[in-house]
Amino acid sequence: MLDVAILGLGTVGSGVLEVIEKNSDAISQSAAQEIRVKYILARRDYPGAPFEKLVTKDFSVIENDPDVRIVVETIGGVDAAYEYTKRSLMKGKSVVTANKELVATHGYELTQLAKKNNVNYLFEASVGGGIPIIRPITQCLAANKIKEIYGILNGTTNFILTEMIKKNLSFETALKRAQERGYAEANPEADIKGYDVCRKICILAALSFGRHVYPRQVKTEGIESVTLADIAYAEKLGCRVKLLGRAIHREEDGKITAYVAPHLVDEDNLVASVEGVMNGIIVRGNAIGDVMFYGAGAGKLPTASAVVADVIDAAKHIGARKWLSWEDGSDEIIYDSDLLENAWYVRTASPKEEIEKRFGDVETIEGDGERVFITPVMNRYALDEKLAGLNIRAAFRILR
Amino acid sequence: MLDVAILGLGTVGSGVLEVIEKNSDAISQSAAQEIRVKYILARRDYPGAPFEKLVTKDFSVIENDPDVRIVVETIGGVDAAYEYTKRSLMKGKSVVTANKELVATHGYELTQLAKKNNVNYLFEASVGGGIPIIRPITQCLAANKIKEIYGILNGTTNFILTEMIKKNLSFETALKRAQERGYAEANPEADIKGYDVCRKICILAALSFGRHVYPRQVKTEGIESVTLADIAYAEKLGCRVKLLGRAIHREEDGKITAYVAPHLVDEDNLVASVEGVMNGIIVRGNAIGDVMFYGAGAGKLPTASAVVADVIDAAKHIGARKWLSWEDGSDEIIYDSDLLENAWYVRTASPKEEIEKRFGDVETIEGDGERVFITPVMNRYALDEKLAGLNIRAAFRILR
Repeated sequence: MLDVAILGLGTVGSGVLEVIEKNSDAISQSAAQEIRVKYILARRDYPGAPFEKLVTKDFSVIENDPDVRIVVETIGGVDAAYEYTKRSLMKGKSVVTANKELVATHGYELTQLAKKNNVNYLFEASVGGGIPIIRPITQCLAANKIKEIYGILNGTTNFILTEMIKKNLSFETALKRAQERGYAEANPEADIKGYDVCRKICILAALSFGRHVYPRQVKTEGIESVTLADIAYAEKLGCRVKLLGRAIHREEDGKITAYVAPHLVDEDNLVASVEGVMNGIIVRGNAIGDVMFYGAGAGKLPTASAVVADVIDAAKHIGARKWLSWEDGSDEIIYDSDLLENAWYVRTASPKEEIEKRFGDVETIEGDGERVFITPVMNRYALDEKLAGLNIRAAFRILR
Repeated sequence: MLDVAILGLGTVGSGVLEVIEKNSDAISQSAAQEIRVKYILARRDYPGAPFEKLVTKDFSVIENDPDVRIVVETIGGVDAAYEYTKRSLMKGKSVVTANKELVATHGYELTQLAKKNNVNYLFEASVGGGIPIIRPITQCLAANKIKEIYGILNGTTNFILTEMIKKNLSFETALKRAQERGYAEANPEADIKGYDVCRKICILAALSFGRHVYPRQVKTEGIESVTLADIAYAEKLGCRVKLLGRAIHREEDGKITAYVAPHLVDEDNLVASVEGVMNGIIVRGNAIGDVMFYGAGAGKLPTASAVVADVIDAAKHIGARKWLSWEDGSDEIIYDSDLLENAWYVRTASPKEEIEKRFGDVETIEGDGERVFITPVMNRYALDEKLAGLNIRAAFRILR
């Protein structure tokens, strides 16, 4: 019998309760012991609920109960979650979470703290919801040097883009639909502006390359600038518009570059076929080549199932360290993503002559008072220099 | 320092040597110790090769050297591989392999033997080459009850079907091209007839559902009967022809059904977009929903990287058991796959009236002296009864 406390009873927290109950046989068998929820930390009472007696408002009750070996943090954010995680680890309890913001911001410190206290800090659910990705990177691909990792890491924005592509809805209408279905929050900023993807790519970069990458080091662009016109031109070019998080380990100098931006992705790339709220993450290793992990990137039960898998793993590794941690980051190890070279999709209201003056003989697709073209391969600074003075409506990287 | 012996120096064995050398830093760091190849069991000498002095022709040298804690079996087949695996496990050595035939045939016995000797028998590379699949099923999805697992498990046949679809090549020409490129063996029977997929679905079923499923219990159909006509009709129906291995756990009675057959897969299903030599495997869990694992399902380095990841894992778990094993199989737990119901694609030279007499009002697509139609949902026996007396050219299951 192993006692667990759940902090927070929002979507993920209540999903964890549900999965532990629903699959208790399979879970006990995997963990080789019964897993019991002893406490639930919540701000209010739940009179009449089957778990009514488990609820406490006082974290110190959990902190000071030596029977609680595993704490599931589903509070979110970096305030109380950060404090309770530290206090739990210091008390020798393993902590499991889906909190990408906390891992992206304080992951280095928290994994070190876990190491010092000989416990585990596990966060499989922080990236890709229920899709197995953290453990495959650190274990299954351990014989590879990982060169690059990229993909669709946010279901909300991918749903919006898919609605725009498939149903010809405007960004605003698609966003509204996402909110109606519960895929986007009332304040959708973290999704739409790419912050959520930024946090996830930080975590993936740390695991893949061994150094912490902080969100402030990742240039981040969301999908607000994507229009139906871009979607239509992309289709003519054999591409789909996708919001990608991307992190690359440079062999030349060992530096890391990471960024978040909309891309035109070639429709032969499997990532282009990842639709709706699904996520798809490509990992490129020097031995394995490209592998992709695909599935529901969010949602109550998928995310909860990843949290519970970590609980099982933590239960099997009580008293043993499960994960290697990574080293701290620094600005010296970061390579400016605007120096990455690729072809660019450009939409402009300027005349063809002006384009050809700067880019030479390029093919254009003519639209309504505007045209699009694809540039030669160049970095962002070179692009901006060439585009200066033109009337530019959109400029996205192309991923072939 | 941990000593390893490699049995066999074919494609996978030499790939393992190469990966261990190429990524030695990353591997030592992951394994928290240096991994050294001490012996290579081979049938001949390799004068002048850098590993010349490691070669031995005598397995008992390896068997009786207590320094060798991990044996990498890359011999293949079930004869010498079976014997050496048993002898290694009995001597307290962990064994790592990519040998799907051996695991599918004797996996229950060998995992039991490993358990008895407190060592590990690991076989991540036996399914999906380098794609992480075995570990994600047993660990990351541990909080799920797995309901179904299916996918494209053989790169050779998928390459042939892709060439037929994309380049309009006949089966024979596509097979020849696969052989020229080294994707298909001179004797391609194990791939073409579906035996390879059969072994892999046996392993996946055992891991997912906890009972051994033996190859003889899996009805297996290859791709020889697929023609260019079928490919073209499938396209008109919004589908692609794919060879699938599929295993289902029936909630009603706890029975397992597994089979291998060509299917018409709806082009919106991500599996339909898995092209060339790639593999794609869908796992359906009761909490996570569908997840897909995609990557190179064969090839020297991808497969070797999965083998080496297992070596690292075995090194980290010396003296500890890594895997739960499964229970033995029996004919009582198998549900006849021909009782599974779905719509069928039928190609026939019989006239439309004959079809309508048996199936009622169905739409047909007319071809050259033949026609195709889609049946209502029914099982194989009901289908065969209805088709009796018709001139049938093809009948494939449809996966929507």
